[in-house]
Amino acid sequence: MLLDLLQIEVPIIQAPMAGSDSVALARSVCSAGALGSLACALLSAREIRDAAREIRQHVSRPFNLNFFCHTMQPPDAVAQENWRKFLRPHYERLALDIDAVPEARLRLPFDDEVCEAVEEVLPKAVSFHFGLPAPRLIDRLKTRGIRVLASATSVREAVWLEDHGCDAIIAQGFEAGGHRALFLETSVASQVGLFALLPQVADAVSVPVIAAGGIADARGIVAAFALGASGVQIGTAYLFCPEARVSPLYRRALEHATDTGTAITNLFTGRPARGLVNRYLNEAGPFCETALPFPYAATLVAPLRVASEDAGSLDYMQLWAGQAAGLASALPAEELTRKLASEALDLLGSVRVAARHIGANSKSL
Amino acid sequence: MLLDLLQIEVPIIQAPMAGSDSVALARSVCSAGALGSLACALLSAREIRDAAREIRQHVSRPFNLNFFCHTMQPPDAVAQENWRKFLRPHYERLALDIDAVPEARLRLPFDDEVCEAVEEVLPKAVSFHFGLPAPRLIDRLKTRGIRVLASATSVREAVWLEDHGCDAIIAQGFEAGGHRALFLETSVASQVGLFALLPQVADAVSVPVIAAGGIADARGIVAAFALGASGVQIGTAYLFCPEARVSPLYRRALEHATDTGTAITNLFTGRPARGLVNRYLNEAGPFCETALPFPYAATLVAPLRVASEDAGSLDYMQLWAGQAAGLASALPAEELTRKLASEALDLLGSVRVAARHIGANSKSL
Repeated sequence: MLLDLLQIEVPIIQAPMAGSDSVALARSVCSAGALGSLACALLSAREIRDAAREIRQHVSRPFNLNFFCHTMQPPDAVAQENWRKFLRPHYERLALDIDAVPEARLRLPFDDEVCEAVEEVLPKAVSFHFGLPAPRLIDRLKTRGIRVLASATSVREAVWLEDHGCDAIIAQGFEAGGHRALFLETSVASQVGLFALLPQVADAVSVPVIAAGGIADARGIVAAFALGASGVQIGTAYLFCPEARVSPLYRRALEHATDTGTAITNLFTGRPARGLVNRYLNEAGPFCETALPFPYAATLVAPLRVASEDAGSLDYMQLWAGQAAGLASALPAEELTRKLASEALDLLGSVRVAARHIGANSKSL
Repeated sequence: MLLDLLQIEVPIIQAPMAGSDSVALARSVCSAGALGSLACALLSAREIRDAAREIRQHVSRPFNLNFFCHTMQPPDAVAQENWRKFLRPHYERLALDIDAVPEARLRLPFDDEVCEAVEEVLPKAVSFHFGLPAPRLIDRLKTRGIRVLASATSVREAVWLEDHGCDAIIAQGFEAGGHRALFLETSVASQVGLFALLPQVADAVSVPVIAAGGIADARGIVAAFALGASGVQIGTAYLFCPEARVSPLYRRALEHATDTGTAITNLFTGRPARGLVNRYLNEAGPFCETALPFPYAATLVAPLRVASEDAGSLDYMQLWAGQAAGLASALPAEELTRKLASEALDLLGSVRVAARHIGANSKSL
C-alpha cells in the first residue's frame, strides 16, 4: 500500500520541479499529509543537506528528494560549435554575445557524493528520473530504509524499474510538464497518454503505481485510481502556489495556458520536456537535431532565457507546464493539497468498490 | 442525458473505422444496447442506403453513420509529382510500377447527395470527423431529428462544435487510433492526452461529452466518467472482434501491439492518424512534408499497402490502432459490448456519486 510505504496520509506526491519547487512548497505539501518533493539535480551535496534541514525545521513528516540519473557524455566540440551556430541568430536578436557566455552549473547525475548526503539526510523517499543510478547506490539507499521511486514512460520501462528494485513506479503520461523520463524508449513520437499507459503499467508490475501527467484536480485523482494507480504525482498545479519559485511572467503565462498551449521540446536542455509554446519553440523547434545532448544544451540557452525575462518577454523563457494547467487554481500549497486530498479521499471509497467490480488491480488501491 | 439523446441503453459508441468496421460489427454492438457505427467516407449514397438496410434487417436499434467533412483542395500537379518522387524508391523496393497506378476511390466529404441518402435512411445519429459540413446540411439532419455528433481534439474545437449545433461532443484524446479529428488546431505537436482534454472540454461545453482514445476496458470507462464524460467511444478494442474487417496479418499485429507501438503519421492519407509503427513509418516518417493533402496522398500509397500485405509483410500496411490495443481481447462484438457495459454500468453508480462530491459536470453523468 502506497500510504504505508511512504508513511503519508494522502496519496498525493508534489512533483519535484527543478528550478521552480522550493523548501517552502515541499514543507506546505508535507504539512497537509502528502509527500512534498525537492528536485536536487541543480543542488550540491551541501545544498541538499541544508535544504533537508530547512524542511525539517517546520515539519517532521516524510519528504522526497529527487535526482536525475542520466549518463554524462563527454562534450563534443563539433556538436558544441553547431549548437552555437544554431543559436547565434537568436543571440543577435536579443543583442547578446554568444562568445561571452560563462560556464553554467550543469544538471548532474546522482553519484557517490550525493548518495552520501542522502544517506545522512535520510528522506523517506528518493525518486529518480531518466532511469536509475548504479545498483550499488540503490542498495545503499534501500539498506537505509529509503523508498526508491522512479518514473516510467512505458510498460517496458516500468518492468525494468521494478526488476531493478523500485518500491513504486511513477507512470508518467505524455501530458506531463517538464522532462520526459524516458530512458529505454527512444521515440518521443511514440510516448503514451496517461489514459492508455496507466492500466497497462498497473497490469505489468506488482509494486504500487503512481499516476503523473495531466492531473490537476480531484477528477483526475479519481480517474487515476480507476485506471489502477495507488497515488498521483501532481506538478503543474503546484506551480500556481505562492510557494513555487515561479516568476510573475511565468505565472501569468500559466494562468493563460490552454489545453493545446504546450509541446514537447528539446530546445532548452537537450532532452525532451513539455512546456508552453513560445517564439523560441515556434521558430526553432519544438525539436531540433542540433541541440546538444542533455545537460549541455542548457548552458547556451540560459542567457537567452534571462535576457528574455528581463525584457518582460516570454519569447525565450523555459516555461515547463503540463496539459492540464487550465484546470489549476492559485491556492497556498497546504490548502490546495488538503482540498485535493479531501475531495479525492471522499471518492476513493467509491472507486475502490468500483475497481473490484471490474477486476482492476485492487491490490494497488 | 446521452442515453436518452441517442436512445441507447449503455453509454458506449463503437467508433466508426473506415475500412475496418462492418455492417456485422455495427449490428452486434447495437444488439447489446450500445451505439454501433458505420464509417461512410468510402461509401456511395447507394452503398449507404444498402448498408443501412442491412443493419436494420437484424436489429431495430439506433445506429450511427459517420462522415468526413474535409474541404477538397484541387489537386496540385507539382505537389503530386513530388509525392510520386518521394514514393518511387518504395515502389522500386516492392517491384511495383508507380506510373501504372489506377485512380482509387477518394474519401469524399459529406455533401448534398449523401445528405439526401441520410435523410432517407434516418439513422438515430450522424457523427462527423474534421469539423462539420455546411450549416444548411446540419439543419437538414437536425430537422429530421437526427442527432449530430462530432469530434474535438481541443477545448476550442469542442466549443466551436457546440456553437454550430452539435448535440454531443466526442473528445478525441491523443491516444486514439486512426485519423486525428483536428480541424481548427493545426499543431499535431500540441494535441492533448485524454486525461487532460476530457475535464477541460467537460468544463467548457454544456452538451454531453463522449470520451475517445485509449479506452479498451471497463477501467477506462469508469475513468472517463470520473473526468466528466457521459459516454465513451471505443475503436481499437472492436478491431479485435471477428466481425471487424481486419486481415489476419493486421489482426496478428494488433495482438502484439505494445503501449509504445504506435505513432501519429500523415504517410497514408495526408492527414495525421495513429497507427502501428512499421518500416514505412520508420523510414519515411512518421511525418513527411511531401505527403499530398488529404485525401489525395492515399491513392499512391494503396498499391504499396496491397503489395505488402500480399507478400505477408507489415512493412507498408496501414495499421490504424490506438495506444490501448494491449488491453483488448478478441471477443464477438455483442459479447464484448455486454461485458464492457455490465462492468461499466456496475461502476457508474459509484462514480456518479463520486463525481457529485468533486463538483464535476454532474449534468453529464
